[in-house]
Amino acid sequence: MASLFRRRGFNIESIAVGESELPGISRMTIIVDGANVLVEQVRKQLDKVVDVIKVTDITNEAIISRELALIKVKTTPSTRSEIMQMVDIFRAKIVDVATDSITVEVTGDEDKVNSLYNLLKPFGVREISRTGVVAMTRGALAGDNGGPREE
Amino acid sequence: MASLFRRRGFNIESIAVGESELPGISRMTIIVDGANVLVEQVRKQLDKVVDVIKVTDITNEAIISRELALIKVKTTPSTRSEIMQMVDIFRAKIVDVATDSITVEVTGDEDKVNSLYNLLKPFGVREISRTGVVAMTRGALAGDNGGPREE
Repeated sequence: MASLFRRRGFNIESIAVGESELPGISRMTIIVDGANVLVEQVRKQLDKVVDVIKVTDITNEAIISRELALIKVKTTPSTRSEIMQMVDIFRAKIVDVATDSITVEVTGDEDKVNSLYNLLKPFGVREISRTGVVAMTRGALAGDNGGPREE
Repeated sequence: MASLFRRRGFNIESIAVGESELPGISRMTIIVDGANVLVEQVRKQLDKVVDVIKVTDITNEAIISRELALIKVKTTPSTRSEIMQMVDIFRAKIVDVATDSITVEVTGDEDKVNSLYNLLKPFGVREISRTGVVAMTRGALAGDNGGPREE
């Protein structure tokens, strides 16, 4: 799939893959940077891939989007409290502490993760591991029949 | 990369892809279900892929691992409070509410996400979108030189 995108020159911002509510079926969330025409082209290309069951374009839907990142940032006795303040403001969590670093877990939309990352960069970000963005449409369940969702 | 794994018969449990701390370089976290010998084979195969810069096997390292999931679960007036209790116990967050559903954001290791998912299933999970797992080694920074991490 990655090579398909590269050949076509699509600029992929983010991909996330995980199990779906249907056994054996994964759900892949892809963010493509481009105009609506381009997004439609991506949709059509994906539809041709044999293993792809369904493609939904949620560009114009009301959605909730979330990403998770683990960020390992360098600390010194004099920077630690400032870093901890930022972590607090972003409602992020410290998940590991070492003598010269702390590891932070942050979740939110892409902008929130970028903001905290940019604020931590001056202290020395040793490693960042981002999951890529997942998204879900807001609101009502269409065609609710009490069984597993087919689409 | 996916087709490489399929051809070789490796069983991929999870893949997460996101930007790394090095501009233009992504970090990919892959969970392979198998014995250590198999994991070593996967490492060797990945090392041969042209675009791959470095492969690190963290099977036997002390790590922090995290995943994020959005879960849309069906609600009725009589089930809503029970669902909200479970969300609370898992320190998950309700990120959207509709008349007949709520959407929950949960983060944690794979087991935690699986546990909440399994508890919500009987109520009717309409959709789950999982990011896949990211991981980071615990503790000290090796060869710290104050600059961006090279590996």
